[in-house]
Amino acid sequence: MINVGIIGYGYWGPNLVRNFFAANDCRVISVAEARPERLRLLEKIFPTIKGVSDAAEIIYDPKIDAVVIATPVATHFTLAHKALAEGKHVLLEKPMTSSTEEAELLINLAEQKRVLLMVDHTFLYTGAVQKMRDLVDSRELGNIKYLDSTRINLGLFQSDVNVLWDLAPHDISILNYIVDERPYSVNATGITHTNNNIENIAYLTVNYASGFIAHFNCSWTSPVKVRMMLVGGDQKMILYNDLEPTEKIKVYDTGYSYSNDEERKRVLVDYRTGDIHVPKLTTTEALLGMANDFIHCIQEKKQPKSSCHLGLDVVRILEASNKSIKQNGREVILESNLVPTITKSNEVLI
Amino acid sequence: MINVGIIGYGYWGPNLVRNFFAANDCRVISVAEARPERLRLLEKIFPTIKGVSDAAEIIYDPKIDAVVIATPVATHFTLAHKALAEGKHVLLEKPMTSSTEEAELLINLAEQKRVLLMVDHTFLYTGAVQKMRDLVDSRELGNIKYLDSTRINLGLFQSDVNVLWDLAPHDISILNYIVDERPYSVNATGITHTNNNIENIAYLTVNYASGFIAHFNCSWTSPVKVRMMLVGGDQKMILYNDLEPTEKIKVYDTGYSYSNDEERKRVLVDYRTGDIHVPKLTTTEALLGMANDFIHCIQEKKQPKSSCHLGLDVVRILEASNKSIKQNGREVILESNLVPTITKSNEVLI
Amino acid sequence: MINVGIIGYGYWGPNLVRNFFAANDCRVISVAEARPERLRLLEKIFPTIKGVSDAAEIIYDPKIDAVVIATPVATHFTLAHKALAEGKHVLLEKPMTSSTEEAELLINLAEQKRVLLMVDHTFLYTGAVQKMRDLVDSRELGNIKYLDSTRINLGLFQSDVNVLWDLAPHDISILNYIVDERPYSVNATGITHTNNNIENIAYLTVNYASGFIAHFNCSWTSPVKVRMMLVGGDQKMILYNDLEPTEKIKVYDTGYSYSNDEERKRVLVDYRTGDIHVPKLTTTEALLGMANDFIHCIQEKKQPKSSCHLGLDVVRILEASNKSIKQNGREVILESNLVPTITKSNEVLI
Amino acid sequence: MINVGIIGYGYWGPNLVRNFFAANDCRVISVAEARPERLRLLEKIFPTIKGVSDAAEIIYDPKIDAVVIATPVATHFTLAHKALAEGKHVLLEKPMTSSTEEAELLINLAEQKRVLLMVDHTFLYTGAVQKMRDLVDSRELGNIKYLDSTRINLGLFQSDVNVLWDLAPHDISILNYIVDERPYSVNATGITHTNNNIENIAYLTVNYASGFIAHFNCSWTSPVKVRMMLVGGDQKMILYNDLEPTEKIKVYDTGYSYSNDEERKRVLVDYRTGDIHVPKLTTTEALLGMANDFIHCIQEKKQPKSSCHLGLDVVRILEASNKSIKQNGREVILESNLVPTITKSNEVLI
Repeated sequence: MINVGIIGYGYWGPNLVRNFFAANDCRVISVAEARPERLRLLEKIFPTIKGVSDAAEIIYDPKIDAVVIATPVATHFTLAHKALAEGKHVLLEKPMTSSTEEAELLINLAEQKRVLLMVDHTFLYTGAVQKMRDLVDSRELGNIKYLDSTRINLGLFQSDVNVLWDLAPHDISILNYIVDERPYSVNATGITHTNNNIENIAYLTVNYASGFIAHFNCSWTSPVKVRMMLVGGDQKMILYNDLEPTEKIKVYDTGYSYSNDEERKRVLVDYRTGDIHVPKLTTTEALLGMANDFIHCIQEKKQPKSSCHLGLDVVRILEASNKSIKQNGREVILESNLVPTITKSNEVLI
Repeated sequence: MINVGIIGYGYWGPNLVRNFFAANDCRVISVAEARPERLRLLEKIFPTIKGVSDAAEIIYDPKIDAVVIATPVATHFTLAHKALAEGKHVLLEKPMTSSTEEAELLINLAEQKRVLLMVDHTFLYTGAVQKMRDLVDSRELGNIKYLDSTRINLGLFQSDVNVLWDLAPHDISILNYIVDERPYSVNATGITHTNNNIENIAYLTVNYASGFIAHFNCSWTSPVKVRMMLVGGDQKMILYNDLEPTEKIKVYDTGYSYSNDEERKRVLVDYRTGDIHVPKLTTTEALLGMANDFIHCIQEKKQPKSSCHLGLDVVRILEASNKSIKQNGREVILESNLVPTITKSNEVLI
Repeated sequence: MINVGIIGYGYWGPNLVRNFFAANDCRVISVAEARPERLRLLEKIFPTIKGVSDAAEIIYDPKIDAVVIATPVATHFTLAHKALAEGKHVLLEKPMTSSTEEAELLINLAEQKRVLLMVDHTFLYTGAVQKMRDLVDSRELGNIKYLDSTRINLGLFQSDVNVLWDLAPHDISILNYIVDERPYSVNATGITHTNNNIENIAYLTVNYASGFIAHFNCSWTSPVKVRMMLVGGDQKMILYNDLEPTEKIKVYDTGYSYSNDEERKRVLVDYRTGDIHVPKLTTTEALLGMANDFIHCIQEKKQPKSSCHLGLDVVRILEASNKSIKQNGREVILESNLVPTITKSNEVLI
Repeated sequence: MINVGIIGYGYWGPNLVRNFFAANDCRVISVAEARPERLRLLEKIFPTIKGVSDAAEIIYDPKIDAVVIATPVATHFTLAHKALAEGKHVLLEKPMTSSTEEAELLINLAEQKRVLLMVDHTFLYTGAVQKMRDLVDSRELGNIKYLDSTRINLGLFQSDVNVLWDLAPHDISILNYIVDERPYSVNATGITHTNNNIENIAYLTVNYASGFIAHFNCSWTSPVKVRMMLVGGDQKMILYNDLEPTEKIKVYDTGYSYSNDEERKRVLVDYRTGDIHVPKLTTTEALLGMANDFIHCIQEKKQPKSSCHLGLDVVRILEASNKSIKQNGREVILESNLVPTITKSNEVLI
């Protein structure tokens, strides 16, 4: 039985409490939250949980085995660092931290303390994402060529992070979960429509040496809600529409191939469309799956699906996207050893 | 009565012939096409039109007043230049030319010869685009803040131009038609999945000094066809879905505003959602409207809706997008005098 | 403060408990449920509510002011009769009773005891249905001409009532709420695909002297879920799609008119299509609105929106639909004084 | 080579001319049409076809082998009878005739004259309907249990036939094409909203001894266009949405089964949902397929897919629907020997 303390009872906190309540082999002991009216709400619904006003009452509580941190991202590093230092297992809400440096420090500390550090990328526990990974892994799509994601709506403008840090972690975590190749660079552009220098619309491209490309379109300023992702291979392609109540994943038996037409000195491309298949998906609640994975991995000393390493890779891409936006869309290299040897820019600049 | 000759009877040619047949005050005299089987098809359907195998038979035919050029873009400049030099009025298919230099030379020649030079950006003649322009012009949207366009499908891979030159002219012409402000720069990224260095997926961002931003997502590699454009103002927003049979334009009474929270040193953003309005649109055939505008402007010596200047501005953005893609997404300046004086890159580089 | 007891903690019970918990000026004292595992579930989630195994412990509890009955319809009459006889206010789940006779007996008893008898037709408390009623009442639709409802899905086959008794009460209650005219007859047909003589597909037509007609298509056997209602007037028409997350109600500025063409001895019909308007709807939880209406009407001695008289009228139509199905679709008269004097059948039979 | 004459050049005539132009082994010789302005239109588009003002010029023209009749239904019998008597092959637009008596007379005459009599039920030649028939024939759906069709829009009110005669022939022909069992009765109800006694909304149920049921909802008075058909088996079910551009047919691996629960004296029903499959359909033009079938069956002396017998069965159901509407929805028997021996009405009437 793992004793859990949860720091932060804001928008997402009640969902975490409810699911750790329902998870196996664990017990929610206490919840820390500075706002008294939120604590009163907690006590009304969950009278058996102790509400405390200070995170320290959880971090330094010897009865607590694992700490769940659901506070603004700027506070993640400090809270998680203290908790890990105390030997607690830690689950961080997404995005993991404000910088790769912070994320790496936490990962090192967790390894040193031999405790579990995990990030809550909930989408990895949905039936839809699991099905997409299975389809990629089984090579049913052939060689995957692109991922194109649109996540827009008229939404809460955050005051601390831009729209990519708010919305893209979902999609980047899915990208990292289903694609093994590591990217070498990103480009991003965006715009601020409020006077606080926090982008409310942004576009991100992630580049890979194999020719795979990923693109993310995020906005808090759309009149319609769109949650759509395309994953294209040369054999089959997936349309993932998260707003569809039952037909979230459609697999198109659609592809293309090319050959050289030597005579006319050009490339001939053939495309093909066939049947569409809509697989039935498991419908268990994703957040409960995440909570169970956390508890199970503590007990079994294993790495979870939504590991701290995946969480770090998400932060790495977000951090680079910030740099690219500030440099007007210039390419920002993530891993220079992965950059294709003859880059396109060399071709141009020579 | 204007006598018209049409050069090119490929994919789009039959539509042009049919609509110039139906247009007012004009007569289709001859059609030039090198492929005999296409000419036979023409003669079967339109026995009164003369089919010729060489464009010169149209360009140098003294009976012909106006030449419509529907050939691959690489041939536009040479054919149009000859026809203008002969004093013919010229209608060019989109995109106008392969470069801004070519487009400017043609515009100068047409002015010198006092003939009409026009580009067929058909979408400007649809009820949907006209309605969008009216909504922007009447300031019903408030200050417009963004345009976001997705035009993807599993489509014919072109062998001479990339996906932006193939698909984006539609959307860029709409952008230029409804937004008066001139852009100062573009960023573009893309990927080639065939070995011919012609991008089949590309993303384009167009930047404006006022803070307006336009983004275009184009692909020949999507299993689903999407034709969707969002135009957002701070008062209202438009969703334009060209695949909807009747509800192509939805106007959302949706907006946002912000204020400074001095105490907490942050910006507060309020958003608002209200009713949606789906205006009835005129349903006349756009291509017929374009043909009538061409003939009418020849007769009245006026500039058409889809003018050569708008056509040039489309080519300018496409040309810059090519440069940006070749430089890995780097910002390419269109008009340096429009660049905001304190650029974001200065902030970063200092 | 009204003390409430709830009988039945099955599929719908938890929703009732949750909303009476949230409602104003009331307190849920006890819940009766025969199945021990359901009672344990109740106690886990709502530790302050007393679970009892016998309905009598609620009906005869002097502390209880109002009884909510959420049991199979066959038990409604007996339970409600006892509770009313004890002077309790009673809320019955839909459909009210198994027969009009039972419903009328309960209504008489409630009047005699001067207590409130109400039926939970939850849909009347949705923003969508309220908007439809407002549009009809304000005569924005003109003269209303038809209501056409489809409520189908692959659903729980009930073992006690057919698909009309299960699904149509929602739609018939909406019909009765928005249309004042009383129907004079019904026709119904249906089919049983299981060997228990309980129709799993059924079609119901309700006839009105003014020429208004209502039609209901109900099925437990559809692979897709459809919740669609059309309400047409001669000036405007409504499409109500309850599965749309935000655009549930669309108002079409669409109508038709007719005139006599004396010369050609025929009727000329003109139709007209115009804009579409999607009004913003209130999004408060309907069940909470219903609970508040129940409590409020007890306190104020008023009749609620979802009154026992409306509930009786729903049962009257359902009861007639049974007769019609058993007589192979024959028209069953509801109110003979409303039958048009020159009926169509007279025309035929003479 | 079959020489074809076409009588009637109204709404559908141009489509017939165009497709018989494109069909194999035939030649359109002449078109008869009383309205001079329609004839001028014909001559402009098809200068090689002879326009005549009187149907007799086609019927008695010895060069003509086959006559296509696309005139109002009331004239079908007389025209077809004359043409058959002259030994011409005849293609009739749907519905075949105004009565079963007329249809039977024509069938007898055609047999006697050894010429082909066919009805144009175009939908039978679509990829979607062919796929549905294949799925039923291969027993992939299991035992089919119901067909439910909705065909509504704001449409042309006809002045000679009601909405069932106008719209339902499409759906009834599909029903007859995919289901071999013969129906024993129909029920229909409807309403007239113009003062000409021609129903603009009508509902039709067709009853079968096996327990299969078909239902048709037709309206000229809907603000939205719906073209949707469900075909349900106990193993799989089909959703056919003719307005979907590419995904017209969806096959749901969805079914149900039942068993007897002896102890609780009730029937237990299990339902099951699984994957969805969207087959690729052939996309050849249906009307061309119909024209080719007509010519081919003349040449090969075979019965076409859309035979006169199927056309007669459609008229039989329409005729019975009229009777049922006039008798207020009463069941009208089509074939008394097919009526289940223990009818439901017996159960009620005893």
